[in-house]
Amino acid sequence: MSRIVRVAVTQFAAEQQPSRNVDRAVALIEQAVEAGAEIVCLQELFTTRYFCQAEVHEHFDLAEPIPGPTTERIASVARRCKVSVICPLFERAGPGVYFNAAAVIDRCGTLVGHYRKMHIPDDPLYYEKFYFAPGDLGFSVVSLDGRVRVGVLICWDQWFPEAARIAALKGAELLVYPTAIGWHDHERAEFGQEQLDAWLTVQRAHAVANGVFVAAANRVGREGTVQFWGNSFVCAPFGRILVRAPTDEEGFWIAECDLDQVEAVRRHWPFFRDRRIDAYGPLLRRYGDGGARPGEEG
Amino acid sequence: MSRIVRVAVTQFAAEQQPSRNVDRAVALIEQAVEAGAEIVCLQELFTTRYFCQAEVHEHFDLAEPIPGPTTERIASVARRCKVSVICPLFERAGPGVYFNAAAVIDRCGTLVGHYRKMHIPDDPLYYEKFYFAPGDLGFSVVSLDGRVRVGVLICWDQWFPEAARIAALKGAELLVYPTAIGWHDHERAEFGQEQLDAWLTVQRAHAVANGVFVAAANRVGREGTVQFWGNSFVCAPFGRILVRAPTDEEGFWIAECDLDQVEAVRRHWPFFRDRRIDAYGPLLRRYGDGGARPGEEG
Repeated sequence: MSRIVRVAVTQFAAEQQPSRNVDRAVALIEQAVEAGAEIVCLQELFTTRYFCQAEVHEHFDLAEPIPGPTTERIASVARRCKVSVICPLFERAGPGVYFNAAAVIDRCGTLVGHYRKMHIPDDPLYYEKFYFAPGDLGFSVVSLDGRVRVGVLICWDQWFPEAARIAALKGAELLVYPTAIGWHDHERAEFGQEQLDAWLTVQRAHAVANGVFVAAANRVGREGTVQFWGNSFVCAPFGRILVRAPTDEEGFWIAECDLDQVEAVRRHWPFFRDRRIDAYGPLLRRYGDGGARPGEEG
Repeated sequence: MSRIVRVAVTQFAAEQQPSRNVDRAVALIEQAVEAGAEIVCLQELFTTRYFCQAEVHEHFDLAEPIPGPTTERIASVARRCKVSVICPLFERAGPGVYFNAAAVIDRCGTLVGHYRKMHIPDDPLYYEKFYFAPGDLGFSVVSLDGRVRVGVLICWDQWFPEAARIAALKGAELLVYPTAIGWHDHERAEFGQEQLDAWLTVQRAHAVANGVFVAAANRVGREGTVQFWGNSFVCAPFGRILVRAPTDEEGFWIAECDLDQVEAVRRHWPFFRDRRIDAYGPLLRRYGDGGARPGEEG
Protein backbone atom coordinates (compact mmCIF):
# COMPACT_ATOMS: atom_id res chain seq x y z
CA MET A 1 0.00 0.00 0.00
CA SER A 2 1.30 3.43 -0.90
CA ARG A 3 2.83 5.39 1.92
CA ILE A 4 1.95 8.69 0.25
CA VAL A 5 -0.93 10.53 1.89
CA ARG A 6 -2.41 13.71 0.47
CA VAL A 7 -3.20 16.15 3.26
CA ALA A 8 -5.33 19.26 2.74
CA VAL A 9 -5.60 22.30 4.95
CA THR A 10 -8.57 24.65 4.55
CA GLN A 11 -8.67 28.38 5.09
CA PHE A 12 -11.69 30.66 4.97
CA ALA A 13 -13.27 33.71 6.55
CA ALA A 14 -16.01 32.83 9.02
CA GLU A 15 -19.47 34.27 8.79
CA GLN A 16 -21.88 35.03 11.63
CA GLN A 17 -24.23 32.13 10.90
CA PRO A 18 -22.75 28.73 11.90
CA SER A 19 -24.71 26.77 9.30
CA ARG A 20 -23.12 28.85 6.55
CA ASN A 21 -19.65 28.02 7.87
CA VAL A 22 -20.46 24.33 7.99
CA ASP A 23 -21.76 24.54 4.42
CA ARG A 24 -18.57 26.28 3.43
CA ALA A 25 -16.43 23.63 5.10
CA VAL A 26 -18.38 20.84 3.42
CA ALA A 27 -17.91 22.48 0.04
CA LEU A 28 -14.17 22.83 0.64
CA ILE A 29 -13.90 19.21 1.74
CA GLU A 30 -15.68 18.10 -1.43
CA GLN A 31 -13.44 20.24 -3.61
CA ALA A 32 -10.32 19.06 -1.83
CA VAL A 33 -11.33 15.42 -2.31
CA GLU A 34 -11.98 16.16 -5.97
CA ALA A 35 -8.39 17.42 -6.12
CA GLY A 36 -7.08 14.27 -4.46
CA ALA A 37 -7.10 15.01 -0.72
CA GLU A 38 -7.32 11.99 1.59
CA ILE A 39 -7.23 13.92 4.88
CA VAL A 40 -8.71 17.38 5.35
CA CYS A 41 -7.86 19.55 8.32
CA LEU A 42 -10.40 22.30 9.02
CA GLN A 43 -9.54 25.48 10.89
CA GLU A 44 -10.04 25.89 14.66
CA LEU A 45 -13.65 26.53 15.78
CA PHE A 46 -14.60 26.40 12.12
CA THR A 47 -18.34 26.64 12.69
CA THR A 48 -18.19 30.13 14.19
CA ARG A 49 -16.52 33.48 14.09
CA TYR A 50 -13.75 33.74 16.67
CA PHE A 51 -16.17 34.58 19.48
CA CYS A 52 -13.43 34.66 22.14
CA GLN A 53 -12.75 38.32 21.38
CA ALA A 54 -15.15 39.18 24.22
CA GLU A 55 -16.45 37.41 27.32
CA VAL A 56 -20.15 36.96 26.53
CA HIS A 57 -22.17 34.29 28.31
CA GLU A 58 -24.57 33.87 25.40
CA HIS A 59 -21.73 32.60 23.28
CA PHE A 60 -21.87 29.33 25.16
CA ASP A 61 -24.99 28.66 23.10
CA LEU A 62 -22.63 28.08 20.17
CA ALA A 63 -21.23 24.94 21.79
CA GLU A 64 -22.39 21.48 20.85
CA PRO A 65 -21.66 17.92 21.93
CA ILE A 66 -19.19 15.49 20.35
CA PRO A 67 -20.67 13.47 18.76
CA GLY A 68 -23.37 15.96 17.78
CA PRO A 69 -25.03 17.58 14.82
CA THR A 70 -21.84 18.91 13.22
CA THR A 71 -19.80 15.74 13.61
CA GLU A 72 -22.74 13.84 12.11
CA ARG A 73 -22.92 16.19 9.16
CA ILE A 74 -19.16 15.98 8.58
CA ALA A 75 -19.20 12.20 9.10
CA SER A 76 -21.76 11.81 6.34
CA VAL A 77 -19.55 13.83 4.00
CA ALA A 78 -16.48 11.82 5.06
CA ARG A 79 -18.31 8.55 4.37
CA ARG A 80 -19.66 9.72 1.02
CA CYS A 81 -16.32 11.21 -0.15
CA LYS A 82 -14.10 8.58 1.52
CA VAL A 83 -12.02 11.25 3.25
CA SER A 84 -10.75 11.66 6.80
CA VAL A 85 -11.51 14.99 8.45
CA ILE A 86 -10.04 16.82 11.43
CA CYS A 87 -13.09 18.64 12.67
CA PRO A 88 -12.44 21.29 15.35
CA LEU A 89 -15.45 22.29 17.43
CA PHE A 90 -16.61 24.33 20.40
CA GLU A 91 -17.59 21.36 22.53
CA ARG A 92 -20.27 21.27 25.20
CA ALA A 93 -19.37 18.34 27.45
CA GLY A 94 -22.08 19.09 30.01
CA PRO A 95 -23.81 22.01 31.69
CA GLY A 96 -21.15 24.67 32.25
CA VAL A 97 -18.34 22.47 30.92
CA TYR A 98 -16.93 23.47 27.56
CA PHE A 99 -13.79 22.63 25.59
CA ASN A 100 -11.95 23.83 22.54
CA ALA A 101 -11.92 20.44 20.86
CA ALA A 102 -11.41 18.50 17.69
CA ALA A 103 -13.16 15.38 16.48
CA VAL A 104 -11.29 13.06 14.14
CA ILE A 105 -13.51 11.32 11.62
CA ASP A 106 -12.17 8.63 9.33
CA ARG A 107 -13.10 7.83 5.72
CA CYS A 108 -15.80 5.45 6.90
CA GLY A 109 -17.44 8.32 8.78
CA THR A 110 -16.47 6.87 12.14
CA LEU A 111 -15.55 9.17 15.01
CA VAL A 112 -12.12 7.71 15.78
CA GLY A 113 -10.50 10.49 17.77
CA HIS A 114 -11.37 13.26 20.19
CA TYR A 115 -8.90 15.89 21.39
CA ARG A 116 -9.46 18.69 23.86
CA LYS A 117 -7.00 21.62 23.59
CA MET A 118 -4.50 21.25 26.40
CA HIS A 119 -2.90 24.71 26.41
CA ILE A 120 -5.46 27.49 26.72
CA PRO A 121 -4.37 31.06 25.91
CA ASP A 122 -5.70 34.23 27.43
CA ASP A 123 -4.69 37.46 25.82
CA PRO A 124 -6.47 40.70 24.89
CA LEU A 125 -9.09 39.64 22.30
CA TYR A 126 -8.26 35.95 22.83
CA TYR A 127 -10.16 35.33 26.07
CA GLU A 128 -10.13 31.57 25.81
CA LYS A 129 -9.71 30.82 29.50
CA PHE A 130 -13.22 32.21 30.01
CA TYR A 131 -14.72 29.77 27.54
CA PHE A 132 -12.70 26.59 27.67
CA ALA A 133 -11.66 24.27 30.45
CA PRO A 134 -8.13 22.96 29.89
CA GLY A 135 -8.15 19.69 27.97
CA ASP A 136 -8.52 16.60 30.14
CA LEU A 137 -7.88 13.86 27.60
CA GLY A 138 -4.11 14.29 27.32
CA PHE A 139 -2.18 14.24 24.07
CA SER A 140 -3.64 11.71 21.71
CA VAL A 141 -2.62 10.03 18.49
CA VAL A 142 -5.08 8.34 16.19
CA SER A 143 -4.42 5.94 13.35
CA LEU A 144 -6.38 6.92 10.26
CA ASP A 145 -7.40 4.03 8.08
CA GLY A 146 -4.36 2.09 9.24
CA ARG A 147 -2.20 4.31 7.04
CA VAL A 148 -1.05 7.30 9.06
CA ARG A 149 -0.84 8.12 12.74
CA VAL A 150 -2.04 11.65 13.39
CA GLY A 151 -1.42 13.80 16.46
CA VAL A 152 -4.13 16.42 16.75
CA LEU A 153 -3.22 19.60 18.59
CA ILE A 154 -4.90 23.00 18.51
CA CYS A 155 -3.55 26.52 17.97
CA TRP A 156 -1.87 27.69 21.23
CA ASP A 157 -0.52 24.14 21.59
CA GLN A 158 1.73 24.95 18.64
CA TRP A 159 3.98 27.12 20.80
CA PHE A 160 4.75 24.25 23.18
CA PRO A 161 7.50 21.84 22.10
CA GLU A 162 6.31 19.46 24.81
CA ALA A 163 3.00 18.85 23.02
CA ALA A 164 4.62 18.08 19.69
CA ARG A 165 7.21 15.84 21.33
CA ILE A 166 4.66 13.83 23.30
CA ALA A 167 2.53 13.30 20.20
CA ALA A 168 5.62 12.11 18.31
CA LEU A 169 6.63 9.83 21.18
CA LYS A 170 3.15 8.32 21.00
CA GLY A 171 3.78 7.51 17.36
CA ALA A 172 2.47 10.49 15.41
CA GLU A 173 3.80 10.82 11.87
CA LEU A 174 1.72 13.90 11.13
CA LEU A 175 0.82 16.72 13.53
CA VAL A 176 -2.19 18.85 12.66
CA TYR A 177 -2.87 22.25 14.18
CA PRO A 178 -6.29 23.78 13.55
CA THR A 179 -5.63 27.45 14.30
CA ALA A 180 -7.13 30.92 14.74
CA ILE A 181 -4.33 33.46 14.86
CA GLY A 182 -4.07 36.95 13.48
CA TRP A 183 -2.71 40.42 13.82
CA HIS A 184 -3.96 43.14 16.11
CA ASP A 185 -4.32 46.31 14.05
CA HIS A 186 -2.18 48.31 16.47
CA GLU A 187 0.67 45.78 16.43
CA ARG A 188 0.80 44.75 12.81
CA ALA A 189 3.06 47.44 11.41
CA GLU A 190 5.72 46.97 14.06
CA PHE A 191 5.49 43.28 14.90
CA GLY A 192 3.35 41.63 12.23
CA GLN A 193 6.08 40.10 10.11
CA GLU A 194 8.02 38.88 13.16
CA GLN A 195 4.90 37.27 14.66
CA LEU A 196 4.04 35.37 11.48
CA ASP A 197 7.67 34.32 11.10
CA ALA A 198 7.82 33.07 14.70
CA TRP A 199 4.61 31.11 14.18
CA LEU A 200 6.00 29.38 11.10
CA THR A 201 9.40 28.85 12.73
CA VAL A 202 8.19 27.22 15.91
CA GLN A 203 5.99 24.76 14.01
CA ARG A 204 8.62 23.94 11.41
CA ALA A 205 10.94 23.29 14.34
CA HIS A 206 8.49 20.67 15.65
CA ALA A 207 8.88 18.92 12.30
CA VAL A 208 12.68 19.13 12.58
CA ALA A 209 12.99 18.08 16.21
CA ASN A 210 10.54 15.21 15.87
CA GLY A 211 10.89 14.03 12.30
CA VAL A 212 7.17 14.42 11.55
CA PHE A 213 4.99 16.17 9.02
CA VAL A 214 3.23 19.26 10.36
CA ALA A 215 0.00 20.77 8.99
CA ALA A 216 -1.65 23.97 10.20
CA ALA A 217 -5.04 25.28 9.07
CA ASN A 218 -5.70 28.90 9.98
CA ARG A 219 -8.62 31.20 9.19
CA VAL A 220 -8.49 34.42 7.17
CA GLY A 221 -10.58 37.58 7.20
CA ARG A 222 -11.16 40.46 9.53
CA GLU A 223 -13.17 39.98 12.73
CA GLY A 224 -13.33 43.19 14.79
CA THR A 225 -9.82 44.57 15.04
CA VAL A 226 -8.12 41.26 14.38
CA GLN A 227 -6.95 40.32 10.90
CA PHE A 228 -6.51 36.54 10.79
CA TRP A 229 -3.33 35.85 8.87
CA GLY A 230 -4.01 32.62 6.99
CA ASN A 231 -0.70 31.09 5.86
CA SER A 232 -2.03 27.60 6.40
CA PHE A 233 0.78 25.23 5.48
CA VAL A 234 2.12 21.70 5.45
CA CYS A 235 5.80 20.99 6.01
CA ALA A 236 7.95 17.88 5.73
CA PRO A 237 9.83 16.07 8.53
CA PHE A 238 12.90 18.26 8.26
CA GLY A 239 10.91 21.48 8.12
CA ARG A 240 10.70 22.14 4.39
CA ILE A 241 7.44 23.85 3.48
CA LEU A 242 5.50 21.70 1.00
CA VAL A 243 2.57 24.04 0.55
CA ARG A 244 1.64 27.40 2.06
CA ALA A 245 -1.42 29.57 1.61
CA PRO A 246 -1.35 33.35 1.28
CA THR A 247 -2.40 35.77 4.02
CA ASP A 248 -5.84 36.56 2.64
CA GLU A 249 -6.97 33.90 0.20
CA GLU A 250 -9.73 31.34 0.88
CA GLY A 251 -9.58 27.74 -0.27
CA PHE A 252 -7.70 24.52 0.36
CA TRP A 253 -4.09 23.53 -0.15
CA ILE A 254 -2.89 19.95 -0.61
CA ALA A 255 0.52 18.43 0.17
CA GLU A 256 1.74 14.99 -0.82
CA CYS A 257 3.23 13.49 2.32
CA ASP A 258 5.50 10.51 1.76
CA LEU A 259 5.35 8.86 5.16
CA ASP A 260 8.52 6.88 4.52
CA GLN A 261 10.32 10.20 5.01
CA VAL A 262 9.59 9.98 8.72
CA GLU A 263 11.85 7.01 9.19
CA ALA A 264 14.36 8.20 6.60
CA VAL A 265 14.81 11.55 8.33
CA ARG A 266 14.99 10.01 11.80
CA ARG A 267 17.68 7.57 10.69
CA HIS A 268 19.84 10.50 9.64
CA TRP A 269 18.87 12.71 12.57
CA PRO A 270 18.39 10.18 15.41
CA PHE A 271 17.22 12.51 18.15
CA PHE A 272 14.95 9.91 19.71
CA ARG A 273 17.95 7.66 20.33
CA ASP A 274 19.77 10.35 22.28
CA ARG A 275 17.10 12.00 24.41
CA ARG A 276 18.25 12.22 28.05
CA ILE A 277 15.09 10.94 29.69
CA ASP A 278 17.07 10.51 32.90
CA ALA A 279 17.57 14.28 33.07
CA TYR A 280 14.24 15.70 31.93
CA GLY A 281 12.55 15.77 35.33
CA PRO A 282 12.69 19.61 35.50
CA LEU A 283 10.23 19.72 32.57
CA LEU A 284 7.53 18.72 35.05
CA ARG A 285 8.04 21.90 37.09
CA ARG A 286 6.42 25.27 36.52
CA TYR A 287 9.57 27.37 36.87
CA GLY A 288 12.79 26.86 38.78
CA ASP A 289 12.00 24.50 41.61
CA GLY A 290 8.27 25.30 41.67
CA GLY A 291 5.28 23.23 40.72
CA ALA A 292 4.88 19.51 40.32
CA ARG A 293 7.83 17.19 40.69
CA PRO A 294 8.46 13.89 38.94
CA GLY A 295 6.00 11.29 40.17
CA GLU A 296 3.63 13.89 41.58
CA GLU A 297 1.91 14.84 38.36
CA GLY A 298 -0.87 12.35 38.87
CA MET B 1 22.78 49.26 35.56
CA SER B 2 22.23 48.80 31.86
CA ARG B 3 20.43 45.65 30.85
CA ILE B 4 22.15 45.62 27.47
CA VAL B 5 24.82 42.96 27.09
CA ARG B 6 27.01 42.68 24.03
CA VAL B 7 27.49 39.05 23.08
CA ALA B 8 30.12 37.91 20.58
CA VAL B 9 30.34 34.60 18.75
CA THR B 10 33.63 33.54 17.16
CA GLN B 11 34.15 31.47 14.04
CA PHE B 12 37.40 30.18 12.63
CA ALA B 13 39.03 27.24 10.86
CA ALA B 14 40.97 25.01 13.23
CA GLU B 15 44.57 24.09 12.62
CA GLN B 16 46.35 20.89 13.57
CA GLN B 17 48.39 22.42 16.42
CA PRO B 18 46.22 23.15 19.50
CA SER B 19 48.41 26.02 20.70
CA ARG B 20 47.79 27.87 17.45
CA ASN B 21 44.03 27.53 17.90
CA VAL B 22 44.26 28.84 21.43
CA ASP B 23 46.34 31.78 20.19
CA ARG B 24 43.75 32.41 17.51
CA ALA B 25 40.91 32.33 20.05
CA VAL B 26 42.77 34.72 22.35
CA ALA B 27 43.33 37.14 19.47
CA LEU B 28 39.63 37.00 18.55
CA ILE B 29 38.60 37.56 22.16
CA GLU B 30 40.87 40.61 22.34
CA GLN B 31 39.52 42.00 19.08
CA ALA B 32 35.92 41.35 20.12
CA VAL B 33 36.49 43.16 23.42
CA GLU B 34 38.05 46.06 21.51
CA ALA B 35 34.81 46.16 19.51
CA GLY B 36 32.70 46.19 22.68
CA ALA B 37 32.00 42.53 23.47
CA GLU B 38 31.24 41.68 27.10
CA ILE B 39 30.70 37.94 26.61
CA VAL B 40 32.51 35.86 24.01
CA CYS B 41 31.36 32.41 23.02
CA LEU B 42 34.03 30.24 21.39
CA GLN B 43 33.25 27.36 19.07
CA GLU B 44 32.94 23.73 20.25
CA LEU B 45 36.27 21.94 20.92
CA PHE B 46 37.99 25.14 19.85
CA THR B 47 41.51 23.98 20.69
CA THR B 48 41.50 21.19 18.10
CA ARG B 49 40.39 20.14 14.72
CA TYR B 50 37.20 18.10 14.82
CA PHE B 51 39.02 14.88 15.69
CA CYS B 52 35.79 12.87 16.03
CA GLN B 53 35.84 12.10 12.31
CA ALA B 54 37.64 8.86 13.17
CA GLU B 55 37.94 6.63 16.23
CA VAL B 56 41.61 6.99 17.15
CA HIS B 57 42.77 6.23 20.68
CA GLU B 58 45.69 8.66 20.47
CA HIS B 59 43.21 11.52 20.17
CA PHE B 60 42.44 11.17 23.87
CA ASP B 61 45.83 12.85 24.37
CA LEU B 62 44.14 16.06 23.25
CA ALA B 63 41.95 16.13 26.36
CA GLU B 64 42.81 18.27 29.37
CA PRO B 65 41.31 18.88 32.79
CA ILE B 66 38.96 21.68 33.80
CA PRO B 67 40.45 23.73 35.35
CA GLY B 68 43.62 23.18 33.36
CA PRO B 69 46.14 24.92 31.14
CA THR B 70 43.61 26.25 28.61
CA THR B 71 41.10 27.52 31.15
CA GLU B 72 44.00 29.24 32.93
CA ARG B 73 45.17 30.88 29.75
CA ILE B 74 41.65 32.03 28.87
CA ALA B 75 41.02 33.15 32.44
CA SER B 76 44.05 35.43 32.32
CA VAL B 77 42.72 36.99 29.11
CA ALA B 78 39.26 37.32 30.62
CA ARG B 79 40.70 39.07 33.68
CA ARG B 80 42.89 41.38 31.68
CA CYS B 81 40.17 42.28 29.16
CA LYS B 82 37.28 42.20 31.63
CA VAL B 83 35.28 39.83 29.45
CA SER B 84 33.33 36.67 30.15
CA VAL B 85 34.16 33.66 27.98
CA ILE B 86 32.34 30.45 27.16
CA CYS B 87 35.29 28.12 26.68
CA PRO B 88 34.43 24.70 25.17
CA LEU B 89 37.00 21.98 25.75
CA PHE B 90 37.73 18.29 25.32
CA GLU B 91 37.78 17.49 29.03
CA ARG B 92 39.74 14.74 30.73
CA ALA B 93 37.93 14.08 34.00
CA GLY B 94 40.07 11.11 34.95
CA PRO B 95 41.77 8.10 33.36
CA GLY B 96 39.49 6.89 30.58
CA VAL B 97 36.74 9.41 31.42
CA TYR B 98 36.31 12.21 28.92
CA PHE B 99 33.61 14.76 28.21
CA ASN B 100 32.69 17.27 25.54
CA ALA B 101 32.55 20.21 27.94
CA ALA B 102 32.51 23.95 28.33
CA ALA B 103 34.00 26.07 31.07
CA VAL B 104 32.40 29.41 31.84
CA ILE B 105 34.85 32.09 32.94
CA ASP B 106 33.69 35.47 34.16
CA ARG B 107 35.28 38.89 33.69
CA CYS B 108 37.26 38.45 36.88
CA GLY B 109 38.81 35.32 35.40
CA THR B 110 36.93 33.06 37.78
CA LEU B 111 35.73 29.66 36.61
CA VAL B 112 32.03 30.07 37.43
CA GLY B 113 30.44 27.34 35.35
CA HIS B 114 31.12 23.90 33.97
CA TYR B 115 28.86 22.07 31.53
CA ARG B 116 29.25 18.61 30.07
CA LYS B 117 27.38 17.97 26.82
CA MET B 118 24.27 15.99 27.65
CA HIS B 119 23.24 14.75 24.20
CA ILE B 120 26.05 12.93 22.39
CA PRO B 121 25.70 12.32 18.65
CA ASP B 122 27.08 9.44 16.69
CA ASP B 123 26.94 9.68 12.97
CA PRO B 124 29.32 8.89 10.12
CA LEU B 125 32.29 11.28 10.65
CA TYR B 126 30.83 12.46 13.98
CA TYR B 127 31.84 9.52 16.18
CA GLU B 128 31.32 11.36 19.46
CA LYS B 129 29.98 8.41 21.45
CA PHE B 130 33.45 6.88 21.18
CA TYR B 131 35.12 9.90 22.75
CA PHE B 132 32.66 11.42 25.21
CA ALA B 133 30.69 10.05 28.12
CA PRO B 134 27.21 11.61 28.28
CA GLY B 135 27.19 14.71 30.47
CA ASP B 136 26.63 14.01 34.15
CA LEU B 137 26.18 17.52 35.49
CA GLY B 138 22.68 18.14 34.17
CA PHE B 139 21.56 21.35 32.52
CA SER B 140 23.15 24.32 34.22
CA VAL B 141 22.62 28.05 34.26
CA VAL B 142 25.26 30.46 35.46
CA SER B 143 24.90 34.11 36.37
CA LEU B 144 27.63 36.18 34.75
CA ASP B 145 28.69 39.21 36.74
CA GLY B 146 25.19 39.42 38.22
CA ARG B 147 23.95 40.76 34.91
CA VAL B 148 22.83 37.88 32.75
CA ARG B 149 21.93 34.28 33.38
CA VAL B 150 23.45 32.03 30.72
CA GLY B 151 22.48 28.49 29.85
CA VAL B 152 25.40 26.71 28.22
CA LEU B 153 24.58 23.84 25.87
CA ILE B 154 26.71 22.26 23.16
CA CYS B 155 26.02 21.46 19.49
CA TRP B 156 23.85 18.29 19.31
CA ASP B 157 21.94 19.66 22.33
CA GLN B 158 20.56 22.29 19.98
CA TRP B 159 18.23 19.77 18.35
CA PHE B 160 16.53 18.95 21.66
CA PRO B 161 13.77 21.33 22.78
CA GLU B 162 13.97 19.73 26.23
CA ALA B 163 17.47 21.11 26.83
CA ALA B 164 16.54 24.66 25.89
CA ARG B 165 13.35 24.50 27.95
CA ILE B 166 15.08 23.21 31.07
CA ALA B 167 17.75 25.91 30.85
CA ALA B 168 15.02 28.54 30.49
CA LEU B 169 13.07 27.07 33.40
CA LYS B 170 16.25 27.35 35.45
CA GLY B 171 16.34 31.06 34.66
CA ALA B 172 18.49 31.36 31.53
CA GLU B 173 18.04 34.59 29.58
CA LEU B 174 20.67 33.64 27.01
CA LEU B 175 21.40 30.18 25.61
CA VAL B 176 24.82 29.64 24.03
CA TYR B 177 25.61 26.75 21.72
CA PRO B 178 29.28 26.16 20.86
CA THR B 179 29.01 24.06 17.72
CA ALA B 180 30.84 22.00 15.12
CA ILE B 181 28.51 21.24 12.26
CA GLY B 182 29.04 21.06 8.56
CA TRP B 183 28.19 19.47 5.27
CA HIS B 184 29.27 16.10 4.00
CA ASP B 185 30.54 16.55 0.46
CA HIS B 186 28.22 13.86 -0.90
CA GLU B 187 25.11 15.38 0.72
CA ARG B 188 25.66 19.07 0.22
CA ALA B 189 24.19 19.54 -3.24
CA GLU B 190 20.96 17.74 -2.40
CA PHE B 191 20.46 18.50 1.28
CA GLY B 192 22.87 21.30 2.22
CA GLN B 193 20.48 24.22 2.17
CA GLU B 194 17.76 22.28 3.99
CA GLN B 195 20.20 21.15 6.70
CA LEU B 196 21.46 24.68 7.38
CA ASP B 197 17.91 25.99 7.36
CA ALA B 198 16.76 23.31 9.83
CA TRP B 199 19.69 24.14 12.11
CA LEU B 200 18.79 27.82 12.16
CA THR B 201 15.07 27.08 12.50
CA VAL B 202 15.28 24.73 15.44
CA GLN B 203 17.48 27.14 17.41
CA ARG B 204 15.41 30.21 16.57
CA ALA B 205 12.42 28.19 17.76
CA HIS B 206 14.10 27.76 21.15
CA ALA B 207 14.22 31.55 21.35
CA VAL B 208 10.53 31.75 20.42
CA ALA B 209 9.26 29.00 22.68
CA ASN B 210 11.28 30.15 25.67
CA GLY B 211 11.58 33.91 25.27
CA VAL B 212 15.38 33.86 25.47
CA PHE B 213 18.32 35.08 23.42
CA VAL B 214 20.17 32.33 21.55
CA ALA B 215 23.79 32.45 20.40
CA ALA B 216 25.58 29.77 18.38
CA ALA B 217 29.29 29.74 17.53
CA ASN B 218 30.26 27.31 14.78
CA ARG B 219 33.57 26.63 13.07
CA VAL B 220 34.38 27.10 9.39
CA GLY B 221 36.82 25.44 7.06
CA ARG B 222 37.28 22.04 5.52
CA GLU B 223 38.44 19.09 7.59
CA GLY B 224 38.62 15.88 5.57
CA THR B 225 35.37 15.59 3.62
CA VAL B 226 33.39 17.82 5.95
CA GLN B 227 32.90 21.51 5.19
CA PHE B 228 31.96 23.26 8.43
CA TRP B 229 29.23 25.74 7.61
CA GLY B 230 29.83 28.68 9.93
CA ASN B 231 26.67 30.80 10.12
CA SER B 232 27.34 31.60 13.76
CA PHE B 233 24.50 33.83 14.91
CA VAL B 234 22.69 35.53 17.76
CA CYS B 235 18.92 35.86 17.78
CA ALA B 236 16.45 37.76 19.97
CA PRO B 237 13.76 36.24 22.24
CA PHE B 238 11.16 36.02 19.48
CA GLY B 239 13.59 34.51 17.00
CA ARG B 240 14.72 37.56 15.04
CA ILE B 241 18.33 37.17 13.88
CA LEU B 242 20.44 40.01 15.28
CA VAL B 243 23.70 39.00 13.67
CA ARG B 244 24.75 36.10 11.46
CA ALA B 245 28.11 35.16 10.01
CA PRO B 246 28.67 33.86 6.48
CA THR B 247 29.42 30.26 5.60
CA ASP B 248 33.15 30.65 5.15
CA GLU B 249 34.41 33.79 6.85
CA GLU B 250 36.54 33.84 10.01
CA GLY B 251 36.14 36.41 12.76
CA PHE B 252 33.71 37.49 15.47
CA TRP B 253 30.20 38.88 15.36
CA ILE B 254 28.62 40.97 18.13
CA ALA B 255 24.95 41.41 19.02
CA GLU B 256 23.51 43.92 21.46
CA CYS B 257 21.14 41.96 23.67
CA ASP B 258 18.65 44.03 25.61
CA LEU B 259 17.79 41.64 28.42
CA ASP B 260 14.57 43.50 29.23
CA GLN B 261 13.21 41.96 26.05
CA VAL B 262 13.06 38.61 27.81
CA GLU B 263 10.33 39.75 30.16
CA ALA B 264 8.67 41.95 27.54
CA VAL B 265 8.34 39.06 25.09
CA ARG B 266 7.16 36.64 27.76
CA ARG B 267 4.45 39.05 28.93
CA HIS B 268 3.02 39.05 25.41
CA TRP B 269 3.63 35.36 24.77
CA PRO B 270 3.09 33.81 28.21
CA PHE B 271 3.92 30.21 27.44
CA PHE B 272 5.38 29.56 30.88
CA ARG B 273 2.02 30.38 32.45
CA ASP B 274 0.22 27.78 30.39
CA ARG B 275 2.55 24.79 30.33
CA ARG B 276 0.65 21.58 31.26
CA ILE B 277 3.15 20.22 33.77
CA ASP B 278 0.46 17.80 34.93
CA ALA B 279 0.48 16.14 31.51
CA TYR B 280 4.16 16.10 30.54
CA GLY B 281 5.02 12.77 32.17
CA PRO B 282 5.42 11.03 28.78
CA LEU B 283 8.46 13.24 28.10
CA LEU B 284 10.37 11.05 30.54
CA ARG B 285 9.87 7.97 28.36
CA ARG B 286 12.05 6.81 25.48
CA TYR B 287 9.25 6.09 23.05
CA GLY B 288 5.66 5.06 23.51
CA ASP B 289 5.42 3.44 26.91
CA GLY B 290 9.10 2.49 27.05
CA GLY B 291 11.93 3.75 29.17
CA ALA B 292 11.92 5.63 32.45
CA ARG B 293 8.69 6.70 34.07
CA PRO B 294 8.00 9.74 36.22
CA GLY B 295 9.74 9.38 39.54
CA GLU B 296 12.10 6.74 38.24
CA GLU B 297 14.58 9.03 36.56
CA GLY B 298 16.68 9.80 39.56
